[in-house]
Amino acid sequence: MSDPARVAFLGLGIMGSRMAANLTRAGVDVVAWNRTRARAEELADEHGMIVAATPAEAAEAAGAVITMVVDSPQVEEVLFGPSGAADGLSAGGLVIDMTTIAPTASRRLAERLARDGIGFLDAPVTGSAPRAEDATLTIMAGGAAEHFERAKPLLEAMGRLVLHVGPQGHGSMIKLLNNTVAAVNAAALAEALTMAETAELDLDALTAVMSAGSGGSTMLDLKGGPMRERSFEPLFKLDHMLKDVRHCLAEARALGATLPLATRAEELYAKAAAGGRGEEDFAAVIEALDK
Amino acid sequence: MSDPARVAFLGLGIMGSRMAANLTRAGVDVVAWNRTRARAEELADEHGMIVAATPAEAAEAAGAVITMVVDSPQVEEVLFGPSGAADGLSAGGLVIDMTTIAPTASRRLAERLARDGIGFLDAPVTGSAPRAEDATLTIMAGGAAEHFERAKPLLEAMGRLVLHVGPQGHGSMIKLLNNTVAAVNAAALAEALTMAETAELDLDALTAVMSAGSGGSTMLDLKGGPMRERSFEPLFKLDHMLKDVRHCLAEARALGATLPLATRAEELYAKAAAGGRGEEDFAAVIEALDK
Repeated sequence: MSDPARVAFLGLGIMGSRMAANLTRAGVDVVAWNRTRARAEELADEHGMIVAATPAEAAEAAGAVITMVVDSPQVEEVLFGPSGAADGLSAGGLVIDMTTIAPTASRRLAERLARDGIGFLDAPVTGSAPRAEDATLTIMAGGAAEHFERAKPLLEAMGRLVLHVGPQGHGSMIKLLNNTVAAVNAAALAEALTMAETAELDLDALTAVMSAGSGGSTMLDLKGGPMRERSFEPLFKLDHMLKDVRHCLAEARALGATLPLATRAEELYAKAAAGGRGEEDFAAVIEALDK
Repeated sequence: MSDPARVAFLGLGIMGSRMAANLTRAGVDVVAWNRTRARAEELADEHGMIVAATPAEAAEAAGAVITMVVDSPQVEEVLFGPSGAADGLSAGGLVIDMTTIAPTASRRLAERLARDGIGFLDAPVTGSAPRAEDATLTIMAGGAAEHFERAKPLLEAMGRLVLHVGPQGHGSMIKLLNNTVAAVNAAALAEALTMAETAELDLDALTAVMSAGSGGSTMLDLKGGPMRERSFEPLFKLDHMLKDVRHCLAEARALGATLPLATRAEELYAKAAAGGRGEEDFAAVIEALDK
């Protein structure tokens, strides 16, 4: 029997595990499922979640399903694959996908669920592991207002800035645009630092000047140090940033919009990925500029 | 006779007029010269400066000369042209060029002045008219430490963050890199806003998400509103931004460094300038993306 106060959480990776833990801390009953079951059981012991054997089993016990996996093929798999969550949900259920996927893919999922009377929100997040941990993520949800209102208390247990940004698909698009701007800003910083190193400039002075003025950015604050130190412990993997930029470029093409700088940035991230940097932090884009 | 406590200020444009006024407020004796003399006299009345008929006359009365003009040809003209400031300075004098010019040009000027025993600092500024007015500019000076120490009290009367960033030419290079990163960040913002408009996204939500996260930048804070409103009252002219990006790209070529994003951004600013936007604020780069 489904319990509307219970939530199925599918995907306990770096982000999902922290987000699910915050739901339990807020008093939500979480039924967790993860591809690697041992990981789910470890977290269940620590945070008092119930572990389900399949997405369908998790969904059966809950009124809402949250998916936080890698990309749209994984979201489709956990929803519509064998023993997928869609099998466990009944009419009136709600799926909240917090994975960053292409808006076209999320619209497709929404339409498919709607046929069974199941609601859908695309509610991706910004902020990496530390902000997932602190429940200070930014969450941007696209979908019907009634679905957003139902999801809001859950989302507020995981994020600080929780916005209903418009109809279905708009959460994903805003997320992709944010990440694409971040990707360009980080690549612009990388090329400036590389040139400054070549010219033997004082990098502390350059950073101080940029921070105090028009060259300032969140990317400078977060990635300036790691880029200078060539320290690429992943907070957000370069492969994932590349995926987001590509989704954004595909969406732009579909709209007839052009993103000339993002197009150029995609080439740099692709070059870094081809050079073996995909599993590192996206600050490693600077390696695509090194001679 | 030259008075070491007196400063010749050459160039009273949007920035220079405010900077010279702050010097007088700090008790510095300013002898001002401007190409359009009426403008100098107006300011002299208001702020109690002395007006000189030529750069040479201004320099003769002073121990240090500050130049704040448009680009290197204008700096060369006011220093070495007919009745140029170099004629009025004697050995031991100091020129502080606060114009943003190419590092190669500033090195050439420094060498030429050094032959007459005259010191040189390249000390460009960041921050536009409001920060020139409030004496909160960022000033980055390249040159000999002894020259910086002499100039420091003057620079501190005009700026808040005043840095000696290294040898001659490094002030200009840091300034150009800062502006180039700003130019790329602004163009990335412009393309994101244009795509968001095409997709009919909620621009307030997009801006809130970017400000709270990885897409945040000083350019978003300063130019997001003007871009959305297509309001291009110039705080920093697009032609001047284009000039800085081009100087930076030329310097990169000389160093063998590559700036792929800045190269792409230059094309967008050039397109906007060709479309008649050169005298507007550089936020008008968004017009290069509109269909």
